[in-house]
Amino acid sequence: MLIVKKFGGSSVADAKKVFNVANLIVEDYKKGNDVIVVVSAQGDTTDDLIAKAKEINPKNPSKREMDMLLSAGEQISISLLAMAIETMGCPVISLLGWQAGFNTDSHHTVARIKNINGERLKKEIDKKKIVIVAGFQGINKYDDVTTLGRGGSDTSAVAIAAALKADLCQIYTDVDGVYTADPRKVPNAQKMDAICYDEMLELATLGAQVLNNRSVEMAKKYNVELEVRSSLEPHKSGTIVKEKVKMEKTLIKGVAKDNNVASISIVELEDKPGIAFKIFNKLAQAKINVDIILQSIGRNNTKDITFTVSQDNREDAIAVIEALKDTLDFKAVTYDEGVSKVSIVGAGMESNPGVAAKMFEALFDAGINIRMISTSEIKVSVLIDENKADEAVIAVHDKFVN
Amino acid sequence: MLIVKKFGGSSVADAKKVFNVANLIVEDYKKGNDVIVVVSAQGDTTDDLIAKAKEINPKNPSKREMDMLLSAGEQISISLLAMAIETMGCPVISLLGWQAGFNTDSHHTVARIKNINGERLKKEIDKKKIVIVAGFQGINKYDDVTTLGRGGSDTSAVAIAAALKADLCQIYTDVDGVYTADPRKVPNAQKMDAICYDEMLELATLGAQVLNNRSVEMAKKYNVELEVRSSLEPHKSGTIVKEKVKMEKTLIKGVAKDNNVASISIVELEDKPGIAFKIFNKLAQAKINVDIILQSIGRNNTKDITFTVSQDNREDAIAVIEALKDTLDFKAVTYDEGVSKVSIVGAGMESNPGVAAKMFEALFDAGINIRMISTSEIKVSVLIDENKADEAVIAVHDKFVN
Repeated sequence: MLIVKKFGGSSVADAKKVFNVANLIVEDYKKGNDVIVVVSAQGDTTDDLIAKAKEINPKNPSKREMDMLLSAGEQISISLLAMAIETMGCPVISLLGWQAGFNTDSHHTVARIKNINGERLKKEIDKKKIVIVAGFQGINKYDDVTTLGRGGSDTSAVAIAAALKADLCQIYTDVDGVYTADPRKVPNAQKMDAICYDEMLELATLGAQVLNNRSVEMAKKYNVELEVRSSLEPHKSGTIVKEKVKMEKTLIKGVAKDNNVASISIVELEDKPGIAFKIFNKLAQAKINVDIILQSIGRNNTKDITFTVSQDNREDAIAVIEALKDTLDFKAVTYDEGVSKVSIVGAGMESNPGVAAKMFEALFDAGINIRMISTSEIKVSVLIDENKADEAVIAVHDKFVN
Repeated sequence: MLIVKKFGGSSVADAKKVFNVANLIVEDYKKGNDVIVVVSAQGDTTDDLIAKAKEINPKNPSKREMDMLLSAGEQISISLLAMAIETMGCPVISLLGWQAGFNTDSHHTVARIKNINGERLKKEIDKKKIVIVAGFQGINKYDDVTTLGRGGSDTSAVAIAAALKADLCQIYTDVDGVYTADPRKVPNAQKMDAICYDEMLELATLGAQVLNNRSVEMAKKYNVELEVRSSLEPHKSGTIVKEKVKMEKTLIKGVAKDNNVASISIVELEDKPGIAFKIFNKLAQAKINVDIILQSIGRNNTKDITFTVSQDNREDAIAVIEALKDTLDFKAVTYDEGVSKVSIVGAGMESNPGVAAKMFEALFDAGINIRMISTSEIKVSVLIDENKADEAVIAVHDKFVN
């Protein structure tokens, strides 16, 4: 059986943890499995490297050089993990993104995997070696190092599982599975045995932080069955993420909160055809993901457009809008970072029109004001004040799950 | 003019120093020169990484994984230096060893450069970019990362200068040139304006620590003129290292000390033909450089062989000898690390038979016992007690230079 295992940075933060992970790997290997492991940079390495870059250039170091810098982090963790496995007498080899065949596009810091040339991986597996791969990184067609952005190691693991048709893709995290809400915040949160890709995708996008959304997208596309497990309790069964899950009794699958949200408003924008296209097209070109969009009803031939982006993209997004000043007529661009997005997710939702209303009722009962609303077939999201977010999650969760 | 500049780890140890180096580079670039820069890992990075490896495996982590680990160090320094140059508005790009075309053999941790594919370097230079190259590293034919060993960044710089026929190759160090002895230890030490390759080679080999010997060998082979300069006083002229230097008044060019020496003795070795070949051939195969060799006069059909290696190689060398136990008959292998090698170097030496005697006289006058002696056409080395080494250097230096 070919198993792909992914471990995050906290799972390999120090020598003791590296050996814990090495033990898990060797255990599977000694059962006769082929094992490929994807690892992130150790603990705070990435943050430390970012701090070094900010010392040199606090504002805008080039993204190409940031990728060069940050990709050193996994290089350290893979070699250390390989050394730990060596001490246990198992054949092992570590591979960087480019060595493992990760070809990406050229969008530095948020690159997308174009394909994996699995030749080297297969060769090492054929030699019965445990292969340790640097997550989060690849190279573009110019042979420059790229990184896949936040949570990119999950994507690396799924991509390998897809390319090599692995039998199992296990994502080890610091929680033991996917819950109906954050178990640290919501006492009644329940662990799910299984969840389907679309639901997981919504939860991931909404900041449940268990799995990176691009990894779930890719798992769905290539039908890679994922298992989310705890690296602290590695022998406890986790949550399976797959195509179809039989309907469970609760209507919603989870309540998620995302504090990494900034809302940006373009105030008194001249109302003429094509402005929305112009704005959001430019943002898309700048690779900025826009989430909720709210457009006010016009007044004096102007209107206000408010949208949300992740906080990391806030500055870039404002710069994009400011650069449109020549072609668009507006009074000001303002932003607010003190907001949070709370969402409910569940595949049965679209055929139950009362779900959104029930959520709004829960928030109303808790005295929480809703600033923006967004809905899709399987989720309802609201934007609220950040300091009310935890309270809102509990209120909404307890309304649906009990 | 194409200039190759090399900066060691202490020159880029923190953000301030990175900017100092960036200034020097930009200064040359703005004069219209093409500039390629080779950098080592920042300050203590390499030592920190070695410490991490030792936490995992204190004895013998595989050399392949050590190379993977250590090469992350330059990856950090090159990207930070590139970021600093970006803030000054100059086009710049950082390249890892493999991106810069460094092809090496497969002797991990002590790899030798086989060739440089200068295509990428030329392309970036043609685009008028300043190119920052990770020193010390390359890849072998299997696409595995290799490192060049101690002082390898000097070699990287010379190799680029040779491959691209650079007009100048400047090695920045923490001293302002090559001295007749270590100026921190010998008050009378004098800086030389120029020194020839062979003399520099002896000084480098003998631990003068200004230039790595492999880099001087390569400079001699490809006739690359080197300039040793201070990164602290970058505008002060340094020492030129080239093929021929006009004879100067002093007979010897320098006195050097090397504490990184271990002497190993094979005691009561059965005396039969071919044993020296067997021993030193095996050591050579293990890539262990043997320096001085002393063979005792036989007794009872046995003899003792004593030789010196660098301290890093001591354990490996002993292991090689122990492994010969089946084919060679000897009583014991012993070693001594409390030794130091003191040497005098000068091209005029071979035609002056009194030079060695003069050195021995200086040591005798200072009451220092000589344990082993080795001579070549342009140097005389003696092995003495380590705690007498500084005293010996001053005594010998003052006998020749005044």
